[in-house]
Amino acid sequence: MKRKKFLKTTAKLGLGITTLATALSSCKVEKKEVDLSAININFNKTFKWRMASFWPKNFPVFGEGDLFFIDWVKKMSGNRLDIKLYAKGELVPAMEVFDTVQDGTADIGSAASYYWLGKTPAAAFFATAPFGMNAQQHHSWMVAGGGYELWKEVYEPFGLIPFISGNSGVQMGGWFNKEINTVDDLKGLKMRIPGIAGKALEKAGGAAMNVPGGEIYTNLERGVLDATEWVGPYHDYKMGFYKVAKYYYTPGWHEPGTQLEFFANKKAYESLPSDLQEIIQGAAVRVQSWTLAEFDAKNGIYLKKILDEGTELRRFPDDVLKALKKYSDEAIQEMIGNDPVAKKVADSYYSFKKRINPWTDITEKVYYNSIQEM
Amino acid sequence: MKRKKFLKTTAKLGLGITTLATALSSCKVEKKEVDLSAININFNKTFKWRMASFWPKNFPVFGEGDLFFIDWVKKMSGNRLDIKLYAKGELVPAMEVFDTVQDGTADIGSAASYYWLGKTPAAAFFATAPFGMNAQQHHSWMVAGGGYELWKEVYEPFGLIPFISGNSGVQMGGWFNKEINTVDDLKGLKMRIPGIAGKALEKAGGAAMNVPGGEIYTNLERGVLDATEWVGPYHDYKMGFYKVAKYYYTPGWHEPGTQLEFFANKKAYESLPSDLQEIIQGAAVRVQSWTLAEFDAKNGIYLKKILDEGTELRRFPDDVLKALKKYSDEAIQEMIGNDPVAKKVADSYYSFKKRINPWTDITEKVYYNSIQEM
Repeated sequence: MKRKKFLKTTAKLGLGITTLATALSSCKVEKKEVDLSAININFNKTFKWRMASFWPKNFPVFGEGDLFFIDWVKKMSGNRLDIKLYAKGELVPAMEVFDTVQDGTADIGSAASYYWLGKTPAAAFFATAPFGMNAQQHHSWMVAGGGYELWKEVYEPFGLIPFISGNSGVQMGGWFNKEINTVDDLKGLKMRIPGIAGKALEKAGGAAMNVPGGEIYTNLERGVLDATEWVGPYHDYKMGFYKVAKYYYTPGWHEPGTQLEFFANKKAYESLPSDLQEIIQGAAVRVQSWTLAEFDAKNGIYLKKILDEGTELRRFPDDVLKALKKYSDEAIQEMIGNDPVAKKVADSYYSFKKRINPWTDITEKVYYNSIQEM
Repeated sequence: MKRKKFLKTTAKLGLGITTLATALSSCKVEKKEVDLSAININFNKTFKWRMASFWPKNFPVFGEGDLFFIDWVKKMSGNRLDIKLYAKGELVPAMEVFDTVQDGTADIGSAASYYWLGKTPAAAFFATAPFGMNAQQHHSWMVAGGGYELWKEVYEPFGLIPFISGNSGVQMGGWFNKEINTVDDLKGLKMRIPGIAGKALEKAGGAAMNVPGGEIYTNLERGVLDATEWVGPYHDYKMGFYKVAKYYYTPGWHEPGTQLEFFANKKAYESLPSDLQEIIQGAAVRVQSWTLAEFDAKNGIYLKKILDEGTELRRFPDDVLKALKKYSDEAIQEMIGNDPVAKKVADSYYSFKKRINPWTDITEKVYYNSIQEM
C-alpha cells in the first residue's frame, strides 16, 4: 500500500495522528519482509499482450513454437504476462505482421526476418542466405559473433526489438518431376521458389513462381509446376508432395539453416518491468532450443516414411550448386545495392562464416564424414 | 501484511474496533489489485541458493556459464532467487559436487553427467559417448527424442533433478608428440585420457594416464606423456600445449559433443514457487544456447592462433578410428554390464542415433561437404 494513498484514506476518516503513525508502521511490516533489491518491481501488476504470427494456427513446429513461447512466458512470469496468440490471418495477413507490431496493434510478432527485406534488405541475413551458414554456425554468429547486436540496430529505426527464435536446420532442396543433372536442366524449370533464391533460379534460366502453399500440390500434379521447395520431410510429408513428385533433392542450398524470430514493439517491451523483459528473452531462447531439436527428430522419422513411399533421393550435382552459388551471389549483391546497413550486416555475416569455416571443417565435417558412419 | 499479524499489533496498541476495521480495509486495497490467477505465488518471498560447481572459478565458457545462469535467474526472477556460486574446491572438491547437492548442502550443481558414472553408469550417456552423437543430434535426442525424460528418471533415486546445459561441440582429438599412422602407433602411447575413452585406449595397447590439468604441460614437455586430450583450440591455447606438442589431432572421437548439466536438489526445487522452477529451466536452456555458440566462435579464432604458432594439424586415419570404435564399444558394454537402467538409456541413445543419422547424412553432412566450401 502506498503511503500517499493511506494518508488520504486515514485523513478522510479523521483518525488521530498517533493511530495514523501506528497503522503506517504496521503496514510497513510487510514492506520490510521484501528484499530491498526487488522493491522496484511491482509484482502485483499484470500485463496483457497480443502476438501476431506469420504462421497458421497449429502449423507444425513453427506454430507450436508460438504456443510454447506464450506458455513459457506465462509460467516464468507467474501469470503476470499473458499473451494472446493471433495466428496468420486472425489479426492481419502474414505479410502485415511487421507493420502491426510496429504500430502497436500487436505487442509481439512471430515470423522470419527475410520476409521483411522489402523494409530493409539487411533483415534477410538474420534469417538465412542462399549458400550461407548452417544452423550451428548461424547461431554462433548471432550469439557470440555480433549478429544479434546488429539485428537490434537494424530493427531499432522501426521501433522493434528482435529475439532469436528457432532454426529449421538445413532444409531440403525440394521436390522435382525433372532430374537435374546439368546446369542446362535448370533452363525453363517452373519451380515454386520465392525470394532471393527465386531470383538466382531466374538468372539460371528457370521460372521462379510464387504459388501459395495450398495450391502447390495441384500445380505439381497438373504439371503447372515442375518443382517446388518447401521445408523438410516432416512438413513435406504432410503436404503429400511424395504423391505428385518423383525426386526429392538435397541440399537446400537456398535455406541452409533458417532462423526464425520474435520481435516486440519497443515501447511495449520497455513498459514491462525488468524481470518480464528478461523472461521474454529467456522464453525466445527456449523456443530456439526446442525448434531445431524437434525439426531433426521429426525429419528423421518422416524421411523414412517418404522413402518408404518410393520417393527417389537425389543430390544436386556440384556443377549445378556452383552455378546456383554464382547466381545467388549476384542476387544478394543486387538486394544489398548501395544500402550501407545491408552492407555492414553482410560484411559481418560473411567474415564470421570465413572465420568459423576452418573450425567446423576439422570438427563437425569430420564427424559427419567418419564418426557418424560408424 | 498478514491479517493475523496486524490484529496482534493493533490489539497491543489498544486501537478501537472501528479504527481497526478501517485500517484493515485500507491495507486490503493492495491485495485487491493482485491478479487472482497469480495469487498462489507469494512474490514477496525471496530465496537464497548455493551452487556447487565442478568448474574452476572463471574457467572459460564452462565457468562463465555458471555466472550467466546465476545472472539470468536473478534477472528473470526480479531478484527473488539469489544463487551464490561456489566454484571447484570452494565448497567441496569437484568430484563431490553430486553428493553435496544430493545431501542438500548445495541446492544446485554444475558439472557434466559422465563424471557420475560410478554412481549410475547410465549417467554417462547424458553427457556424451565415444563415437556417439554430435551436439545437434544429442540435443535433438534430449529435447525431442525422450533423452531428458530418461535423465530425470535416472537422477530421481538420488533426489536430484537434471537440467540440460551447454554443449562443447565436437572436441579435438588432442595433442601428440608421436604421429598416429596405424593402429600399432597406439601401442605404448602414454596419453592423458580419462574415462571410457581411456579404457578403449588401453585395449588398443596404450597407457591411459589420469593427470590433473595443471600437470599436463610439464608432463608433455618432459616426455612423461606422449599425448593429451583436453577440449578445443580456445582452452588448449590457454594451456599452452602448442609449445610442448607437435601435432594437433582431429576428430575428438572420445567426445563428439559433450553436454553439460545443472542439477537441483529435488526438495529445494520443489519448495520454490512454480514461476521460479520454470525460470531455472529457462536459465539452463539459455546457457545451453550460449555455450555452443561461444565455443564455436572462440575456437574459430584460437584455431588460427594455434596454426600460426606452427602446430601441425593431423586427422586420425580411418583404420585407427575403426579400431578405437571397436574398443570403445567393448568398454561401453563393460560399463553398462547388467545394469538395466544403463541398458535402457543406451537403447534409447543408440536407436535415436540410428534414426537421425540418415537425416543428418543428407542435410548437415552435405552442407559441410559442398555448401560450406563454396
